[in-house]
Amino acid sequence: MQIDKLLDDIQKRDKRTIARALSLVESEHPITETLLDRIHQFTGNAYRIGITGPPGAGKSTLTNQLAKYLRKLGKTIAIIAVDPTSPFTGGALLGDRVRMTDAGNMEGVFIRSMATRGSLGGLSKKAIDAADVFDAAGFDYIIYETVGVGQSELDIAKAADTTAVVLVPESGDAVQAMKAGLMEIADFYIVNKADRPGSEQAVSAVKTILMLRAHDEHSWMPDVVKTVAHENKGIDLVYKELQRHEAHLKSNRQFSLRRENRAKERIREIVFSKIVSEIWEKSGEQVLATSLKKAIDGESSPYNIADEIIQNYKSSLKEVNND
Amino acid sequence: MQIDKLLDDIQKRDKRTIARALSLVESEHPITETLLDRIHQFTGNAYRIGITGPPGAGKSTLTNQLAKYLRKLGKTIAIIAVDPTSPFTGGALLGDRVRMTDAGNMEGVFIRSMATRGSLGGLSKKAIDAADVFDAAGFDYIIYETVGVGQSELDIAKAADTTAVVLVPESGDAVQAMKAGLMEIADFYIVNKADRPGSEQAVSAVKTILMLRAHDEHSWMPDVVKTVAHENKGIDLVYKELQRHEAHLKSNRQFSLRRENRAKERIREIVFSKIVSEIWEKSGEQVLATSLKKAIDGESSPYNIADEIIQNYKSSLKEVNND
Repeated sequence: MQIDKLLDDIQKRDKRTIARALSLVESEHPITETLLDRIHQFTGNAYRIGITGPPGAGKSTLTNQLAKYLRKLGKTIAIIAVDPTSPFTGGALLGDRVRMTDAGNMEGVFIRSMATRGSLGGLSKKAIDAADVFDAAGFDYIIYETVGVGQSELDIAKAADTTAVVLVPESGDAVQAMKAGLMEIADFYIVNKADRPGSEQAVSAVKTILMLRAHDEHSWMPDVVKTVAHENKGIDLVYKELQRHEAHLKSNRQFSLRRENRAKERIREIVFSKIVSEIWEKSGEQVLATSLKKAIDGESSPYNIADEIIQNYKSSLKEVNND
Repeated sequence: MQIDKLLDDIQKRDKRTIARALSLVESEHPITETLLDRIHQFTGNAYRIGITGPPGAGKSTLTNQLAKYLRKLGKTIAIIAVDPTSPFTGGALLGDRVRMTDAGNMEGVFIRSMATRGSLGGLSKKAIDAADVFDAAGFDYIIYETVGVGQSELDIAKAADTTAVVLVPESGDAVQAMKAGLMEIADFYIVNKADRPGSEQAVSAVKTILMLRAHDEHSWMPDVVKTVAHENKGIDLVYKELQRHEAHLKSNRQFSLRRENRAKERIREIVFSKIVSEIWEKSGEQVLATSLKKAIDGESSPYNIADEIIQNYKSSLKEVNND
């Protein structure tokens, strides 16, 4: 595989090349690392937005409308959908996978759904790697759409410059969401499906909770925006709030601090995933297969076997070192 | 710390000792590993139940009622609540933390909520470690209550012998849940809040989806049970379905297969968490602090720095080996 050509074509924003690069990232192809290493210098220009919230809040519809809105302003948009409940990603169980793809048919909009299963801890790593590909390809905005419950999912939302939490008016929902750790990551709130009864109450409830938080005069005060995404209402307000937050971040050191923390978290994740796959490749699988029965019979414990695997790995390093 | 005394007192089901052991597990105290290693031989007797589903489905209320039901049958029950939206764990935002604790006041019922934040990837490991403490203490049932969205959360649900997925009648909810990966882990379904309109349709919807799955004559066919947990209705049906599933598992090799897979996953998680903390303790934090700026300035890439950290770790092992 010619990595120079790949890099070139990504920067030319060639759709097929981008799709190919994303597949490499998702399949953890050996070349991915070199690719992402080389690509890094071309990243940092895209603005990254997280759209998160409980299942059924209408995140996909909203993301779709926001993408269309940004497109009309002449921007290019990449969407990374990692929401297992999203029509983009959730499998075509009832055939609704196609429902939300109209933004995906526009020139200058690229939608990628990422599998959310079977990747032990690697979900947020892959999503962020994918964002780097889009970033290097020169997209103006990258939107992560992710369900706002669950550790890996929150990690993805945290990897954005601005994160919007989407709620629905149904009573109690706001409070539920606040408790689920969403409050800590929300830069602003969207009450979607605001044509339903109770939307005013939901807005007040969120605002009340926000007021309870301590904040000094320099700190950011999140707003609560109402939308009816399936009727394309309120998207301008979402955009305004996005701009307000971006301006706030860039008016002080917060923007670079955020990106610093993001880089830190990312390095941690890369170390994890590399070392773990190394261990399993070297001897872990084999030790596990032969020792498992002992753990089940009570002769040994899972902690014992884990130690055996780690010691085995370390010995294998020693052999290499002594060569 | 006297580990023999600790082990003894856990097996005597001493409440304070159990609480202490659980705190050790949660804080990742160095002694935890020895404790869990030694405790392993006394585990395997408890039956582990997973109660999962979307936020707001009433999982806590249901878990509470199920615990009381089992208690009346003379059983002892431990509840591990790792649902960030649960009143047990979600912080006393609106003071509802106390609402669900009546089972917790009963002799023979032990409730432990586990923090769901700040533990990178370690959530399911800790929950399963905690279950081992309860198992060794001789509890008959261990119930994991966990929200059914998110990778770590699904991992916990998968660590049970029987997993029940709780849904509410609201239209679309069943379908959303099915898409979120819950279908793959559900041994049976509970439509809670079944006094609300639409509960019959929800039951039919789930049954229809279940019928679409291929199944042979030996395979398990999940049932759909209706409850109104806050009125204590339908809990007997939940118990019946639990028993039916347990009997099914034990009638063939599935029960031991499930526990084998559970042991495998667990060993993987232990290896992962041990090696990762070793890396960061040895030199990772230091390398990260000095190299981070290079990644942000584009001089280096996150992949490069991750490599540096790993190489550093390996060299430190070599030094030890040569001693």
